[in-house]
Amino acid sequence: MQAAIYHGPRDIRVEEVSDPEIEASTDAIVRITHTAICGSDLWFYRGESENREGNGVGHEPMGIVEEVGDDVTSVEPGDRVLAPFSISCGECEFCRKGLHTSCTNGDGWGGDNGGAQGEKVRCTHADGTLVRVPDEHADDEDTLESLLPLTDVMCTGHHAAVSAGVEAGDTAVVIGDGAVGLCGVLAASRLGAERVIAVGHHEERLEIAEEFGATETVSARGEEAVEEVKELTYGGANHVLECVGAQSSMETAFDVARPGGTVGYVGVPAGVEDTDFLGTAFSKNVTLNGGVAPVREYVEDLMDDVLQGTLDPSPIFTKTVDLDGVPEGYRAMDERDAVKVLVKP
Amino acid sequence: MQAAIYHGPRDIRVEEVSDPEIEASTDAIVRITHTAICGSDLWFYRGESENREGNGVGHEPMGIVEEVGDDVTSVEPGDRVLAPFSISCGECEFCRKGLHTSCTNGDGWGGDNGGAQGEKVRCTHADGTLVRVPDEHADDEDTLESLLPLTDVMCTGHHAAVSAGVEAGDTAVVIGDGAVGLCGVLAASRLGAERVIAVGHHEERLEIAEEFGATETVSARGEEAVEEVKELTYGGANHVLECVGAQSSMETAFDVARPGGTVGYVGVPAGVEDTDFLGTAFSKNVTLNGGVAPVREYVEDLMDDVLQGTLDPSPIFTKTVDLDGVPEGYRAMDERDAVKVLVKP
Repeated sequence: MQAAIYHGPRDIRVEEVSDPEIEASTDAIVRITHTAICGSDLWFYRGESENREGNGVGHEPMGIVEEVGDDVTSVEPGDRVLAPFSISCGECEFCRKGLHTSCTNGDGWGGDNGGAQGEKVRCTHADGTLVRVPDEHADDEDTLESLLPLTDVMCTGHHAAVSAGVEAGDTAVVIGDGAVGLCGVLAASRLGAERVIAVGHHEERLEIAEEFGATETVSARGEEAVEEVKELTYGGANHVLECVGAQSSMETAFDVARPGGTVGYVGVPAGVEDTDFLGTAFSKNVTLNGGVAPVREYVEDLMDDVLQGTLDPSPIFTKTVDLDGVPEGYRAMDERDAVKVLVKP
Repeated sequence: MQAAIYHGPRDIRVEEVSDPEIEASTDAIVRITHTAICGSDLWFYRGESENREGNGVGHEPMGIVEEVGDDVTSVEPGDRVLAPFSISCGECEFCRKGLHTSCTNGDGWGGDNGGAQGEKVRCTHADGTLVRVPDEHADDEDTLESLLPLTDVMCTGHHAAVSAGVEAGDTAVVIGDGAVGLCGVLAASRLGAERVIAVGHHEERLEIAEEFGATETVSARGEEAVEEVKELTYGGANHVLECVGAQSSMETAFDVARPGGTVGYVGVPAGVEDTDFLGTAFSKNVTLNGGVAPVREYVEDLMDDVLQGTLDPSPIFTKTVDLDGVPEGYRAMDERDAVKVLVKP
């Protein structure tokens, strides 16, 4: 099969690799019909995190089940499915408490399973991981493109909102206008926030934020952003979504938090190298809550909203490529020519 | 009056200074009868934080009201009172929500108010700050020594337990065997924790932890402590009290936290310089909750327990000095000859 393979920083190639096969009775093979390139893929693309040369890339799979192991009962060949960026068993302590990312039998994409940016993947723990799209929606292209962000960024934005404690009537501030930040705006609105203030610095992305329910946008960084948000919130917000993971965004998040408030963070904090934010958090008793998003816990609930037409994160896809276009897709995201790239192998 | 004055690292002198006087109608003058030396006083004593030469020191005042301004209504001359380490108005948004340390009219000890390690202090915002000891207990020396820790460390340990989400039936791990850590053990027990595991490395302090309700103690540091606690808790605890504020203790706290758990932290994180703990927090979705303790919010509730005889943190005082003995008290705490020093001016 053809798949996008990592060969080093800024070197992704589409090439022939072995097809994944059923190895355990709980495996399924999924032919990818839709997938995406993630902001977190840019970490290894830019050489800022490790990846293994020859590894398949991509972790946001949607497709058609081709084959299942003998013990798989929740899906069968022909089903349209999607899966979170992490594989989970659905049965351990952590899956049962909704923290599938800490699954004691957890697995991931890439390696022998194949990356999602390829023709096929093997999904281990298929019953615990795959989410079936109901048949009546399984071939509706618009619906599928609206569902695809539930494999990662939409559920990650939702985790930021949930972690920040956003409830109906609240004022929420969202730091970051990338795909996750925009999904955070959508999630906060969906949870009933009365005011959602989106902070970013790309006009066209802040326009999507407004489309997603932002009541105000702040196009600024650092101290200027902090001052604007504090003025808008009469001193700071009780609910702040940190959707970047950079040093400056973390500091901004804590600076705009109201004393006693909560920062829900979902951006991999690989870029946070000093602890200035901690002094701010300590002095104001601002809670830091969140982490890697347990997508599997949220995906069915959010799918209901997509299928009933009340949730549509698909505007984050500002560019679409086929499998051969994956390297160009990485370039476009790296250079911020695209918010998020949809891949249709 | 005589008072302990900061002259530089490891140079505290007791000397003659001006008496504080009523300046605003909301002030009170309190003659100190009992106070203490705090672990956080060691920051400036060791030159690890700033202090101003000539400043009065100490922030844990208990004494007798000598004089009040015209608008003070909650206390009168002759009353036995105690006060938190921070002064708060009792009327602003943050005081009303129980976060008195973020009081918009907040003030502190030292400076023109005088430090608590002296003969007298001026308490601004007396109605919002001073807590009256009921008359029938006001002259009972044992009771007063049991109440004194409510000015800081007992409420701080309680804040760690509350912030870590400790409830009846829980298992809690307390990192640190200083006065705050020991009070954290007492607080977790008081909240009904079934298991309280105290982690430290001073045998005689861990004995106090057992007296305070620790069901198990771990005398180890770093990786060894982590392994022991993880074994005792079958993989980590949902409720961890970080009562030190050092790099290593913060890392240990997150390492022993169970995925999805909470670290309640109350140690000034001045010693936390790298962000390793953050990666652990992110990957396991462990919440960081807490900060500088809003003592005023807790002190009346805890006082009820002390007065009814069900709470007694006084064993943390392992040394008693008079005002002239304050420099020796600092030395003893600095060299860990004392857990906490009681001062009777």
